[in-house]
Amino acid sequence: MNTRTSHLVIDPRLDRILRPRSVAVVGASNDIARISGRPLRYLLEHGFDGTIYPINPKRDEVQGLKAWPSLASLPETPDVAILAIPAVAIPDTLKEAGQIGLPGAIIMASGFAEASEDGRALQDYVRDIAAEGGVRLIGPNCVGLFSTGARFYGTFTQSLDAGVPQDGGVAVVSQSGAYGGYIAWLARQRGLGVGTWITTGNEVDLEVGECVAWLAGQDEVKVIALYLEGIRNGPAFLDGLARARAAGKPVVAMKVGRSEAGARAATSHTASLAGADEVYDAIFREFGVYRAETTEEQLDIAEACLHGVFPSGNRLGILTLSGGVGVQMCDAAVKYGLDVPPMPQDAQAELKALLPYAAVTNPIDTTAQMMNDMSLVTKNLQMVLERGGYDSLVSFLTTVPGAEAYSGPLRDAILKGVEGFEERLAVLCMAAPEEAKQAYRDAGFVVSQDADRAVQIVGALTAFGQSFAAAAATRPVLPAPDPTLTAADTLSEHAAKQVLARAGVPFLPERLAKTRDEAAAFAKEVGTPLAMKVSSAQIQHKTEIGGVLLNVSGADAAAAAYQTLEANAARNAPDAVLDGILCAPMAPKGVEVIVGTLRDPVFGPVVMFGLGGVLVELFRDVTFERAPFDIGTARKMIGRVRSAPLLAGLRGAKPSDTEALAKLLSDVSCFAAANAETVVSMDLNPVLVLPEGDGVVALDAVVEPG
Amino acid sequence: MNTRTSHLVIDPRLDRILRPRSVAVVGASNDIARISGRPLRYLLEHGFDGTIYPINPKRDEVQGLKAWPSLASLPETPDVAILAIPAVAIPDTLKEAGQIGLPGAIIMASGFAEASEDGRALQDYVRDIAAEGGVRLIGPNCVGLFSTGARFYGTFTQSLDAGVPQDGGVAVVSQSGAYGGYIAWLARQRGLGVGTWITTGNEVDLEVGECVAWLAGQDEVKVIALYLEGIRNGPAFLDGLARARAAGKPVVAMKVGRSEAGARAATSHTASLAGADEVYDAIFREFGVYRAETTEEQLDIAEACLHGVFPSGNRLGILTLSGGVGVQMCDAAVKYGLDVPPMPQDAQAELKALLPYAAVTNPIDTTAQMMNDMSLVTKNLQMVLERGGYDSLVSFLTTVPGAEAYSGPLRDAILKGVEGFEERLAVLCMAAPEEAKQAYRDAGFVVSQDADRAVQIVGALTAFGQSFAAAAATRPVLPAPDPTLTAADTLSEHAAKQVLARAGVPFLPERLAKTRDEAAAFAKEVGTPLAMKVSSAQIQHKTEIGGVLLNVSGADAAAAAYQTLEANAARNAPDAVLDGILCAPMAPKGVEVIVGTLRDPVFGPVVMFGLGGVLVELFRDVTFERAPFDIGTARKMIGRVRSAPLLAGLRGAKPSDTEALAKLLSDVSCFAAANAETVVSMDLNPVLVLPEGDGVVALDAVVEPG
Repeated sequence: MNTRTSHLVIDPRLDRILRPRSVAVVGASNDIARISGRPLRYLLEHGFDGTIYPINPKRDEVQGLKAWPSLASLPETPDVAILAIPAVAIPDTLKEAGQIGLPGAIIMASGFAEASEDGRALQDYVRDIAAEGGVRLIGPNCVGLFSTGARFYGTFTQSLDAGVPQDGGVAVVSQSGAYGGYIAWLARQRGLGVGTWITTGNEVDLEVGECVAWLAGQDEVKVIALYLEGIRNGPAFLDGLARARAAGKPVVAMKVGRSEAGARAATSHTASLAGADEVYDAIFREFGVYRAETTEEQLDIAEACLHGVFPSGNRLGILTLSGGVGVQMCDAAVKYGLDVPPMPQDAQAELKALLPYAAVTNPIDTTAQMMNDMSLVTKNLQMVLERGGYDSLVSFLTTVPGAEAYSGPLRDAILKGVEGFEERLAVLCMAAPEEAKQAYRDAGFVVSQDADRAVQIVGALTAFGQSFAAAAATRPVLPAPDPTLTAADTLSEHAAKQVLARAGVPFLPERLAKTRDEAAAFAKEVGTPLAMKVSSAQIQHKTEIGGVLLNVSGADAAAAAYQTLEANAARNAPDAVLDGILCAPMAPKGVEVIVGTLRDPVFGPVVMFGLGGVLVELFRDVTFERAPFDIGTARKMIGRVRSAPLLAGLRGAKPSDTEALAKLLSDVSCFAAANAETVVSMDLNPVLVLPEGDGVVALDAVVEPG
Repeated sequence: MNTRTSHLVIDPRLDRILRPRSVAVVGASNDIARISGRPLRYLLEHGFDGTIYPINPKRDEVQGLKAWPSLASLPETPDVAILAIPAVAIPDTLKEAGQIGLPGAIIMASGFAEASEDGRALQDYVRDIAAEGGVRLIGPNCVGLFSTGARFYGTFTQSLDAGVPQDGGVAVVSQSGAYGGYIAWLARQRGLGVGTWITTGNEVDLEVGECVAWLAGQDEVKVIALYLEGIRNGPAFLDGLARARAAGKPVVAMKVGRSEAGARAATSHTASLAGADEVYDAIFREFGVYRAETTEEQLDIAEACLHGVFPSGNRLGILTLSGGVGVQMCDAAVKYGLDVPPMPQDAQAELKALLPYAAVTNPIDTTAQMMNDMSLVTKNLQMVLERGGYDSLVSFLTTVPGAEAYSGPLRDAILKGVEGFEERLAVLCMAAPEEAKQAYRDAGFVVSQDADRAVQIVGALTAFGQSFAAAAATRPVLPAPDPTLTAADTLSEHAAKQVLARAGVPFLPERLAKTRDEAAAFAKEVGTPLAMKVSSAQIQHKTEIGGVLLNVSGADAAAAAYQTLEANAARNAPDAVLDGILCAPMAPKGVEVIVGTLRDPVFGPVVMFGLGGVLVELFRDVTFERAPFDIGTARKMIGRVRSAPLLAGLRGAKPSDTEALAKLLSDVSCFAAANAETVVSMDLNPVLVLPEGDGVVALDAVVEPG
């Protein structure tokens, strides 16, 4: 369990560190090709409008600026220091930094935890010195940060050699310096404004979550793009995401290590504990984070977010000059979770009157004929938006916007058509020279060059809109931790069931018979056939030692079965301590599901749900949710698995009691959260979901303490 | 069933039509903004090096060229005529064309089958006139074609206003004129050479398949990019794909209408019969066609194909200057079906000696330190390729290739590193200015800007390599059609089983009892409990009318059951003619699968296979294959479904008899192919796959004639 504290109050030092008005460059040199020279060069080249203090005891001047011998010699305490010095020199410099009350330092050197055990020790030492002196740290092993608004370029990334991105509403936080530089380069190339850019490196102190929390509070930040290899401080990350959502700021994340091969590579690469990738998916879904798979997708979505329109409905209107591409966009709509409802019948007739050659259902294919009269473009758009009532519109304009004669008039006609529908999202797809596309962007449209990606953008912005519009889920009040649980004791099935029954999990009535007579008495009491199993904390696989008998009918048979099981255990597991024989009625008929919890090393307890048997094994048809959660969230969880129709009643079967299942999931989530200190994982497999009104019943339970 | 003939001999006229040395432009005008003016303008602007004959009876000169009054007045028969005239004028012109022996005509006008029923009649008329005169037709409702090698631009697409693509090895065939123009524009923008470009429009004569067949025979064509809304002539398309594969020419297809919503839109848009999208997937897989989902993906893959290296193995080496992006590439490798095996242990040690900071497993992360000594780049690459033995290499170079000081030296170092490994595919991922990327391309590398897409390219080229390397599947010899089948007669279950048993499908021994005594005798003969069902061509849902009884034990019970079933049928389906009562032993235990055939309207009979029950219903876990096929193909088919591990024996269960299942699939495919004229579809649901050695047995059979 991660025990770092969550930064629930934004550290006021961050304003100075991330958007400084004065900076010391420790180890500044004249060699502008080197780490020691490049930050100073960038600061000078791009006109940092605060004070720069090069620190170099061997020189009077560096890159034309007066050089200072030490941090202590400065006439004022700068906002931040860039430490362009080797790892071994960092501790002494940080002691000095603490003495002058420096808010923060950027450590660029590598050779810390990422390199060796010695490096990790040095990193811990550095962390302690900084904490003692009250100095916040960025890095080590990072490439720094920049703030376009402050014209501050505290980085040595070679990717800025060709120029820096323009100012703008995109903030980038990257755990990888190389990726950070890469995305900055691509952003500049496409004219996308990146106002804030932070690489966090080994995150000995400042990490992604706290950056996101800070960015959420900055007015000029409109969208946050993340590159994640592994989160170290789960609570701080969740706090950051919650703030971003509350502030209506979309987060577009690239998280690597999805595949097993990737996760293996990540573990060997980063110094962080990798949480399960599926748990990241759950966290992203919970907070409405968009997970991008490619850099271009990440940039596309981030760019579109600057537009600021996030539809809360998923009804898409498709308007094209080409029927075929309309079909392609339909396919894409399905892929990206959008609906393509038809125009109302009467509106279809009116559209047909306007454009006799057009297809008027949705996609609406006007054919290129519409270009002959631009007023038709306007009327057509107005009718589609007003009568179709679509939340978003995507329009395929072929190469027409690049034709000089048409580009301006078409743009004006479209602008007039969408007038009064500013809350609708309009994405235009075109192949046109950069200037023409920019003119459409300047007119307020999202522009894409690819029909599929244009629809993907709508899907992403709609998901943001729906996340912003949804009320944050209420977290249930946690029960007290179960007093009988300790991290050290293993639990028998019977003990696990007792603990979980207290937490609200329904089990079949069962008796831990200690004698053959007790077994016989229970059989009489129940009146229906029994399942009988040995109970011992030392026996995990009961079937294999002959420890299970099913369909035991009547008192005499129960007594005989008791003896058989006892004898089997003695013979096949002689070292096991037998608690007794667990007797229960045979299970009723129901849909088999599995419910489990696990304690993610980063994000704490999560609940897993899926339908049972081969569906889980072959199709990995399971879903995760962070614990604890309420019944409403549990209902959504149930609806999310692909096999959910089995519970609703496939082929005319009776619907199952999904309400009872939802309550079980929520109860289990509360149990896992309340006992997070003592329970590593818990499994109910199978749980039978009985017909509506009859509830659920768990047949088996395992609790792993630790 | 599509009855058009397949063009199994390439029409020699296509050489003249698609790469003409002389052209008539019928209806040529001076207005270069119009359809009638633009082709002539393009021909003149881009220096068509053959003879141009503008045809316009009202003028002496058009766009500076001597105009001719009619096709008949020309001094020679041109290779092709562009008909830039309205639909109504087409028939007369085509009559004239036939009289002078014109090889082909491009019809650009719309107003044919895509517009109305009258238009369809006109289109049929036009087709007949052309066929009679021996004139091949392109279109109608197309935007023409171009051949860069011949400098022939017989098109009015506005997308060429800004310029034409350079000459090159990519051929584009698009059913949509708008998409054709779009992709041509994008190809020109990225400097991708498109030597041949054909839009086929309504395909009254020339359609995609025949174009592909012709392109497969052209030396200068290296890759074929298709845009498909729906194939009209299945056999010709298959012939084209077979030729392309035999010639080692990759086909990259965009096929729209994948989703149900998309398919609905396509049906309303095209005049073609849409085959099932899953059948297209099967055809594409069979012929190694890559199916792209976005235009950029289509262009990326086509461009990479020009490189000409198609690995037949899927072992990928990943070499990066950034560990994080290596993880991302690992994820991508899994997604795109590639393997990322580690370097051999001893080679890892040697790499580590070379680059102490590097991660040396695979991904190999050299960190940017390697840049300090370019000879390390070379050595490193040599070692990775030689000792790792990877089929492909993808390398993430960050923004370094864009840095003036590094770009050239790095390129040279990489070139030296891959020397002698020309059969390996090397894809470089970089963010760099266009000129820098081009320099790397010119040096022989595939260049991508996105880490995910770089790996996607490797996946695609590997799939081509494996398809080219695989021997074409042998088609089994077909049996004679079943003489008892006619397209008109419906079949009872019993009759269907008799037909299919002759085709090799194993059923349980069964008897169609006509009397209660016959049922009793059969029960005695079998000796195990029976399943008994009413048999009637008029009763499809037997259970619902009380027409099924299970576990009927012994002769007396069988006699009684006979009477019950007969009575139930008389009461609940009084109009049905009862053949008798079908008696069979109760089914043995096995894995349930479903096997079916359907006759695709475009591609003919295909076989569907999937595991039974909810797996089919919820997960659509089925696969298709064109009939007929051999046992080898059937084995692959079985391995393709996600639930295949169930047959192999999950959780220690005994493996099922997949060999018998493969034989069944192949036999069923032969049956479907042999009886394609009389059978619409066939279903065996369920088929039980028994334990290894015990074979398979089909429990139910439906044959739908027609």
